[in-house]
Amino acid sequence: MITRAQAEALDLADPLKGKRQLFVLPENTIYLDGNSLGPLPRHVAERLAGAVAEEWGQSLIRGWNTHGWFDLPRVLGDRIGKLIGAKPGTVLAADSTSINLVKVLTAALGLRPGRRVILSDSGNFPSDLYVAQGVIKALGGGVELRIVAPEEVEAALGDDLAVLMLTEVDYRTGRRHDMKTLIAKAQAKGALAIWDLCHSAGAFPVDLSGANTDFAVGCGYKYLNGGPGAPAFVYVRPDLQDKIVPSLSGWMGHAAPFAFDLDYRPAQGIDRLRAGTPGVLSMIALDSALDVWDGVDLTLLRDKSVRLADLFISEVEGRCGAYGLRLASPRDAAQRGSQVSFHCDDGYAVMQALIAQGVIGDFRAPDIIRFGLTPLYIGFTDVWDAARILERVMAERLWDQPQFKKRAAVT
Amino acid sequence: MITRAQAEALDLADPLKGKRQLFVLPENTIYLDGNSLGPLPRHVAERLAGAVAEEWGQSLIRGWNTHGWFDLPRVLGDRIGKLIGAKPGTVLAADSTSINLVKVLTAALGLRPGRRVILSDSGNFPSDLYVAQGVIKALGGGVELRIVAPEEVEAALGDDLAVLMLTEVDYRTGRRHDMKTLIAKAQAKGALAIWDLCHSAGAFPVDLSGANTDFAVGCGYKYLNGGPGAPAFVYVRPDLQDKIVPSLSGWMGHAAPFAFDLDYRPAQGIDRLRAGTPGVLSMIALDSALDVWDGVDLTLLRDKSVRLADLFISEVEGRCGAYGLRLASPRDAAQRGSQVSFHCDDGYAVMQALIAQGVIGDFRAPDIIRFGLTPLYIGFTDVWDAARILERVMAERLWDQPQFKKRAAVT
Repeated sequence: MITRAQAEALDLADPLKGKRQLFVLPENTIYLDGNSLGPLPRHVAERLAGAVAEEWGQSLIRGWNTHGWFDLPRVLGDRIGKLIGAKPGTVLAADSTSINLVKVLTAALGLRPGRRVILSDSGNFPSDLYVAQGVIKALGGGVELRIVAPEEVEAALGDDLAVLMLTEVDYRTGRRHDMKTLIAKAQAKGALAIWDLCHSAGAFPVDLSGANTDFAVGCGYKYLNGGPGAPAFVYVRPDLQDKIVPSLSGWMGHAAPFAFDLDYRPAQGIDRLRAGTPGVLSMIALDSALDVWDGVDLTLLRDKSVRLADLFISEVEGRCGAYGLRLASPRDAAQRGSQVSFHCDDGYAVMQALIAQGVIGDFRAPDIIRFGLTPLYIGFTDVWDAARILERVMAERLWDQPQFKKRAAVT
Repeated sequence: MITRAQAEALDLADPLKGKRQLFVLPENTIYLDGNSLGPLPRHVAERLAGAVAEEWGQSLIRGWNTHGWFDLPRVLGDRIGKLIGAKPGTVLAADSTSINLVKVLTAALGLRPGRRVILSDSGNFPSDLYVAQGVIKALGGGVELRIVAPEEVEAALGDDLAVLMLTEVDYRTGRRHDMKTLIAKAQAKGALAIWDLCHSAGAFPVDLSGANTDFAVGCGYKYLNGGPGAPAFVYVRPDLQDKIVPSLSGWMGHAAPFAFDLDYRPAQGIDRLRAGTPGVLSMIALDSALDVWDGVDLTLLRDKSVRLADLFISEVEGRCGAYGLRLASPRDAAQRGSQVSFHCDDGYAVMQALIAQGVIGDFRAPDIIRFGLTPLYIGFTDVWDAARILERVMAERLWDQPQFKKRAAVT
């Protein structure tokens, strides 16, 4: 444990400290939920307002050409690609993570006919599992979703494996899979690997090319700060792109969308994963939000993330261990994403009470309180203060009030 | 043909004339392309800016509850439902039209196992046909897409029909199917009917309930003015909702999204057609845009639409018939949507020249020039002026210049 003055000194020495001013952070709030919804980058409001007034308002239909709306999915894809080690032309911004997962899962199964197993783990984000269940049902059977515990994934890679489908970082605990190793082992079995990077992109350096990743998806609204429900992204390894058969085959993924042929002919490359008309306003918000990454060294980002987490763990354990909080995240930083979670009885109420005190994290069933540590705008003093406020919530039992126990629609 | 003074008199007498001021319409422009992208309703800019600054910026993750983001798909669905004769709880705003079509097409096929035919027509928007082709491929065969000419649809309804899938209004010609009759005949064969309302919703009164429609989809960016790539919508007949098995089964369509169960359990009702996280900023723009419909009598809207089209046809035929323009739309208003199209040699260049003169329509291959007549913000004088400018483009061969013949990426 350290003093607040020591935390302040760490902030002063932080090479990323200049980035904080790029974000709107409400007064009297410590926002440790950027892993759920990133805050508003300050300049996005003006860019979006300009796009509405000038691009939509004045250019109208011509905006598709004159303002490059048509190319946004590729342009944004390449910008996101730089953050996840993907080459130009391999990433597309489009739709939602779930929809993109449908695209690559059906594509992957199409490339492995006769193989029966999609392997995932119980730490995967449930929507990914739901998507697989839906895809399997739509196929009319013949494929099985096998769900094992995270630590059993490697041993479960069998010769019947079609697709290994995992989220790199567990949304509850922050536990991080060894992506490169698991991809190599899955590929050695003849399978393809799909990675969900929702809690990876913008959280730490990702090297999709170096890991020889087959497919990946991820969202734009967490560490990429693109706004609520921002467009998601999808990655396909270059040599697979022209082999896959899109199942969500909309006109924007056609080789010649404006020829209006009656027969679908997929575009070359990543463009074939486009489906319907992209949400231009959301795309522009995300495009603008990505500006905050200009000049960011992801190695420094990761270094700060690890140090924030280590500090938060030691402060919370030191201050709140007596109240029954137990670390749910791996203690070893190498096995962790950019969040820290604790098991906590009455966790829902504790989190509501903490939010009422100005520290915003979130709760995940059954008993996890979760804190995102986002180095672009969170500092060491924030983390230190958050731990102290959490201590107060526990020590004074501030959570033990009826209004904190009533569940909201969205938790 | 009438005089300009007569057209002005018609505008003065127009009961909808007050609505025009709600829209941003660029100077020196006659915008006859609202059937491709609706213009910006003036108040949307402020609403969206407020949502960015206050809802996202200040409420952050709490916005899902405090600003009702989670409910937007249902709330917008019900608002759109009022324009298309759908009861509350039957329409959802979500994803793109193509993605929504995947949802209902797979759902419909699931309700008609053993039936082999999806029937559509060559006047359908190609993306709908591409979607069907993708769905069929993903199913691994067993179902066939049969495409006939629009006038042959009724005769092609056979006993093997699983799904009749049509767009009510042909995107090129504006020809309108008799939806109620075709639905009844398809249902008499034991089939289900899916209607694409992209060129219907907000264009004229639609009566989904009265026509006993099984499924419908449509977009938010044409007559609904929700902005480029605005969220689309999907309708499911009440008694079918709990019978369908979603194939795009994301977490937002789960019965308990925040329980984070590993197994998918569809929500009751229309909510099961939700998939991933909705694009909140785009939803808010569409929500705001729908305000322009407050107090609009759709019967008056249709009446004006018909009169605008009849005027435009007679003016263009009178002025431009000698230059080879031929009406591509039905002459009988009852068979028409809210657009008028003409066959025109060198149509692409003609449209580019016309746009350069301030009249914005669009071109659809092979030889269609297309004009959307949107009664909320287009008047009789606009239509009269547009015809006169088109006459000048033809008479002076203004289109016969190289810069008008070079195709843009998006036409």
